[in-house]
This record gives sequence, structure tokens and C-alpha cells, in this order.
Amino acid sequence: MILSDWGRNLTVLSSVREIMRDIETTLSGVDSREYVNISPGNPEEIEEVSSIWRRLSIDVSKSKLFQNYICRYSSSRGTDFFIETFLTYMNGTYSLNLKKENVLVASGSQQVFFYLLNLFAGTRDGTQRKVFFPSSPEYTGYSGMGPGRHFLKSSPPSVQKTGTHRFRYGLGVLPVTLDDVGIAVLSRPSNPSGNIISKNSVLDLVNVCSSHKIPLVLDCAYSYPFPDLVYKDMDHLFDCGVINVFSASKCGLPGSRLGIAIGPEEIIGEMVSFQSNAALQASTFGQLLLGRAIETGELHRVIEITKDHYRRNREFAIRVIGECFPDDLPYYLHESDGTFFLWLWFENLPITDKQLYDRLKENKVLVVPGSGFFLGLEEHDFMHKNQCIRISLTEPRLKLERGIKIMASVLKDLYRLQ
Amino acid sequence: MILSDWGRNLTVLSSVREIMRDIETTLSGVDSREYVNISPGNPEEIEEVSSIWRRLSIDVSKSKLFQNYICRYSSSRGTDFFIETFLTYMNGTYSLNLKKENVLVASGSQQVFFYLLNLFAGTRDGTQRKVFFPSSPEYTGYSGMGPGRHFLKSSPPSVQKTGTHRFRYGLGVLPVTLDDVGIAVLSRPSNPSGNIISKNSVLDLVNVCSSHKIPLVLDCAYSYPFPDLVYKDMDHLFDCGVINVFSASKCGLPGSRLGIAIGPEEIIGEMVSFQSNAALQASTFGQLLLGRAIETGELHRVIEITKDHYRRNREFAIRVIGECFPDDLPYYLHESDGTFFLWLWFENLPITDKQLYDRLKENKVLVVPGSGFFLGLEEHDFMHKNQCIRISLTEPRLKLERGIKIMASVLKDLYRLQ
Repeated sequence: MILSDWGRNLTVLSSVREIMRDIETTLSGVDSREYVNISPGNPEEIEEVSSIWRRLSIDVSKSKLFQNYICRYSSSRGTDFFIETFLTYMNGTYSLNLKKENVLVASGSQQVFFYLLNLFAGTRDGTQRKVFFPSSPEYTGYSGMGPGRHFLKSSPPSVQKTGTHRFRYGLGVLPVTLDDVGIAVLSRPSNPSGNIISKNSVLDLVNVCSSHKIPLVLDCAYSYPFPDLVYKDMDHLFDCGVINVFSASKCGLPGSRLGIAIGPEEIIGEMVSFQSNAALQASTFGQLLLGRAIETGELHRVIEITKDHYRRNREFAIRVIGECFPDDLPYYLHESDGTFFLWLWFENLPITDKQLYDRLKENKVLVVPGSGFFLGLEEHDFMHKNQCIRISLTEPRLKLERGIKIMASVLKDLYRLQ
Repeated sequence: MILSDWGRNLTVLSSVREIMRDIETTLSGVDSREYVNISPGNPEEIEEVSSIWRRLSIDVSKSKLFQNYICRYSSSRGTDFFIETFLTYMNGTYSLNLKKENVLVASGSQQVFFYLLNLFAGTRDGTQRKVFFPSSPEYTGYSGMGPGRHFLKSSPPSVQKTGTHRFRYGLGVLPVTLDDVGIAVLSRPSNPSGNIISKNSVLDLVNVCSSHKIPLVLDCAYSYPFPDLVYKDMDHLFDCGVINVFSASKCGLPGSRLGIAIGPEEIIGEMVSFQSNAALQASTFGQLLLGRAIETGELHRVIEITKDHYRRNREFAIRVIGECFPDDLPYYLHESDGTFFLWLWFENLPITDKQLYDRLKENKVLVVPGSGFFLGLEEHDFMHKNQCIRISLTEPRLKLERGIKIMASVLKDLYRLQ
């Protein structure tokens, strides 16, 4: 079996996927309750949220929507029902003037990014166009999407200590040239660090990108309007000529696969054609559920419950880290602006992040080593990238606490602290 | 906005899509009831079938399946629930030994083909690998999937008159070389012609492909087990080392997007990795509905109603054509082995198929001109390809009859018959 070049790129698992596979192997055949698994990128299922979706699903099944959109094909852009409902909601809430032509619905936001990256990066008339990540670390899922690993470009971020055991990333210095760039992508809030790049910094990027004719994409998977896992003031950029990508996964509907892009008509139009050829249309079930939740106002409740859930886990975990990690441990928590992750940097870590992952695994705590998130920086001599881990806030608080205590003890040993 | 080479290929609409767009334009702003629209590739919504799916949807919404598979992520291969149910069904019905490793579930069969064509065709180590269509005409949707139009390869089929006003395609002569081929695809029954290539002919192809290390894919969108729009004996090829692709769309679930591939473990494994990178996982709603329909036995009823519906339309249309088309009109209907289409060849047609399309449109009958289905034969001097049309059996019988009568009269004029 011989794959095409492109096929070879697309079947490589990112390093974080390899970790996830290792975790799966670790957990299979043992009593998984022995482990504190704070590695998942997946949202926790919140029962109260599931019951709302379940109720809406029964409601949708009984309505005319079911026949119109499950039993019939719809447009490659998305269902009329969802697009109209979504537009009314977005235009009303944020005083926008979005039209149907500005919207594409796909079977999940991963697919939206797959369309975008392959439309604009890769080979173009004999030259190579890269995917540029203005911010680093970034969502590792972008790395396996097609053009290949050598198509990823970034700069080391600035690392600013902001207080005792706190730090924040700033955008790195712009690369010498952007002439080899086809598209730029930024998650906001950032998976994995939880960073929110300021509106002004993004607007500067908008200008740079626009002068180079590079589309700029903002990944809003943790942003508002849903799931709104945002813990500080954040200005939106829904009307700045960039492409904003939304996901229903973190609102409790990952299996329904629903991703939405809003952006300039011309770019969205190309995405619709791509989708028409590659998938005919998006799956419609998630569109019906989210559309009904918007219509009935229940989306508000979903967001409230979800946000409250993770906010409490976040406050709890930050407090426990402060209590359990010794003060002389040179750890720095990234300012937690959003998402359901915490991102920790261990300055002068005596081993690599992957070795730390192994050490923690031996002690029955599963985290994600950070190096896999520094996309396009493999060649850069930037020690920091081997000194971070991501933990997620998706375990019950008792387990979170146990995990943090074990981490504290492993790190004390490593740094030979009393 | 500058697209990558690949992006440019993927945003080109196939000629049949252009026709569909023209039809949309024609129908917008007029009373569509004035037209007989026998162009759709879409299945008709059959109310009795929709009610079964609706009932199962309510059932699924109330069950544990909803939480497990709508509110949580699942494997990139597909949900455990569906894969297990489907395997039990397939292995039991056809005495197979398929394992989980032989199955991939995607958000629609179009997506399955997108994965396959891009994994195996396109650029490979500096050479170009094409998509080979052993049978022609073929499903036009394959043409826009990525590698580009110059990557399509076929041979003119043999055209055999099989009786008064009847004909059948045979496989064309194999091309001089298959060394430039990456993958071979065959729909069986064929969309658009309704042809079913015999098991022995396919087995010959299996040997040829296997000796060239070319994966062979069979598109079972109209085949059994579902929707089983097959009107003559047909041997399956579920255990011959080929990849079989199934779709739930023609069973009344097009909006749910459910496509399934079964095949050799190694190839399926690469498809799972591709899907993991490009889409994370398939949408799950269709999997739950179809899985429940298999479990409860209601799938049998769905197939029965669907098959019966199209069989009656088919018999009716064939009879009306026989009655309305003058005997001295040199028309030939392809032997209708399966699908919900009829395929007509007009020998020595005085105008092109596209002009015939326009002429019929003026007379308020919408069909699909046939030339767009002869993929990879653009350069071939093969008159036949401009003399065919496809009509679908998805209009009520009264309308079908009106359409056929109008066609008869337009054709009589064209051929200057009395």
C-alpha cells in the first residue's frame, strides 16, 4: 500500500496524539480509578447540560425540522434553519451585519480548519505557503491537517513573569518574512495556555496579514458566545475581516460535530465549494439542537452551567496548587484568562517535559507534556518549550486535588527541595 | 485571495454541479410546480420511512446512547455502539469475519471517498497517480475531490444493444498502462446508468489492481444491505480484499451524514488516521439511528418501503417511455439493474446532450445531460458521451408521466419524426 505525499502527511499523528494513545494504553486493562487523568482535551460531560440537549432532541425529533433537515439534503453552506437562527442571534447580540454569505457550517470545527489550512497553505504555483502561528504554544490539532509539518511557522513567544508564580506569553517577534505564509491561525482564548491576546495586538496582526493578503483565522472554541469559558474582559473581533470559527463541542455536543465559520464572503464562498466537493454538506443534527437552544433561550442556561462548572474547578485547582506546591519551587502558572486548562511552566526543570510526563505517569497522574504545542518551533533553540505541562480541569475536585498533591511531591523530589 | 493549487482543484464545481446550479436558478422565483424536475440525485423523502426514523430518534434521545455518543467524543473510527451492531449484522447476514479493524465510519460516504482518493491519488514521490474508473459513465461527485481533473483516468465503455430500445455498457478495454494509477473506483449498481458489473468482471479487476498494488473501491450507495435498490441477482464482494463503501442517505437519512467503509485493516487504519487529523471523528447521530434500526429490525421495513417505492416508479416510467416514445425514435434505455435513475441514450442525436437539456428546460422538464458523467474521457473521441441523459424516479408518477410525454414530443421534433 503506497500513499500519496499528501496522504502520508495526513496520516501522521501529532506528538500530543501519540501521548493520548500512550494514555489510552496505560489505562486499558487497569482500574482507571487508580489514576488521576488530567490530560483530556475533551470536555467533561455535565449531566445538567446533557439533560437540556436530550430534551431539545426529543423536541426536534417531533418537529417538522426533523423531516426537513435529517431526511432531506440541505445546502452545502448549512441548513437555512440554523443559519437564519444563528445570524439573528449574532447580529442581535453583537450589533453585526452578517449575512448568509458570511457563514459556513461544517461537521465540527476541526473540519473548518482542515478546509482553511488546505485552501490557503501548501504548494501554490511552485512555491510553498506555510501556516503561521502568531502565538505559541498553540492547539496541536492544527499540525496534522495536511500540508505537513514543514509547513508550520512560528516565532518563540515572549515569556513574562507577571507575579509570584505567575507568567504570561506575549506574541513573538514577527518572522523576517511572511512571504512564504498562506494563512495565519490563532486560538483565543488559547488552547493550551489559556492566554487571551489583546484586541489591539490582534488588530496589529490583522493589518500585517491584510497587507500580505494572508487570511487570519481566530479559533473561538472556548470563546463567547458559546461556551464562553472566558474569565476576564475580552473584546470580540467578529467584524474585523478575520475568520472566526466556533464549535459546539465544549457546550456538550462533541458527538454531534458542529463547527461554524463566519468571515468575508469571498473566503466563505470558497469553503462552501470545498465542502460541497469533499463532504456534500455538514451533518444537521447539531444544527437543529443548537438552533432550537438559541430560539428557546436555553443556550443561555447551557453556557451558564458550563462556565460555572469550570470556573469553580479552575479556582479550586489554582488554590490547591498555591497550597501544595512549595514556595521555593520555581513553578509559574500561566495567567488563566480562559479555557478549561491550566498551563504550568517549571523553570530550569532538571528533566524534559516528556520525562516529567513519564515520572508523573509512574505516580498515577496523567498530564500532557507541553513541547508538542510549540508548533513550528522544532528547530528553535528555546529551552522553555521543554519545561511546560498542560492539565485539564475535567476531573472531580477530589481527584484534581490528589493529582496536584502527587505532582507537588514528584516536583519536590526532582528539584531536591525539602 | 490566493488559493493553494490543491485548494483551486477542490473548489471547482463539476459540470453536473453546474447543471444543478442552473436548475436551482431556473426554479427560483417561478412556480416550481410548473416544472417536472427529474434531475435530482437526491432521494425523495418517503413519509412512512421518515416516521420510522423520527420514532427511533425519540427512542435514542431517551436512551443512554444519547449521553454516551452525542454528549461525549468517541473514537476516530466510529462509535463502539454502531461498529459492534453493524459487524454483528454484516457478519451474520453474509457469513463474513469482519472485525472492528475493518471498519471506518465517516460523516457521509462522500467524505469516505474524499479520504480514499486523496490518500492514494495525487502526487507521490514526484510522480502523478490517477483515479481510475474501470466503468464509465460514473458518479460525477468523484471528479471534484482533490487531485484535480487531470488525475481522472478511464476508457470508453463498450456499448451493447441488448434488445429493442435497450442497451448495456461493458467495461472498456484496460488502459495500456496502470502504472500511473493510485486507486480504482467503481459504483455498483452504477450511478448514473444503473448497470451492475458482474462479480466475475469485478474479480478480474481485483486481480489486475492487486498485481499493481492499487486499492479497488466499490461504491455501494444503492446496493444491499441498504437501501438495496437492486432489481436483479447480484453477488456481493464484501470479502474480496476490496473496500466497500455504504451510505445511509438513500435510506432516508441524508442530513445525518453517515458513510461506512469496510476493507483491509491496513487501508482502513490509514483512513482512521486521516479522519482523526481532518475531522477528529464522524458525527454520531446517524450511527445511533441506523444502529437502533438494525437492533430493532426496523431497518428491514425501511428497506422494504424504499425499494418498493422506487421499483414501482421504475416500472411505471419504463412502461410510459415504451408507450410514449415512438418506435422509430432511436432511443435506448440502459438495462435498469439498480439505483433510482434511468439512463437514456439517443443514437445519432442531432444536437448535444447539453443542448437537449436546454431544449427540455424550455419545455419545463429538467433532466441531467449525460456528458458530465464520462469522467476522464474528455479527450476521447467518443460520440456516445454527448447523446445520453439521466432521469431520476423521484417525482410522483403523474409528473413523471407528464415529463416523459414532453420528452417524447421534443425528441420527435428533433429527429423530425411524424
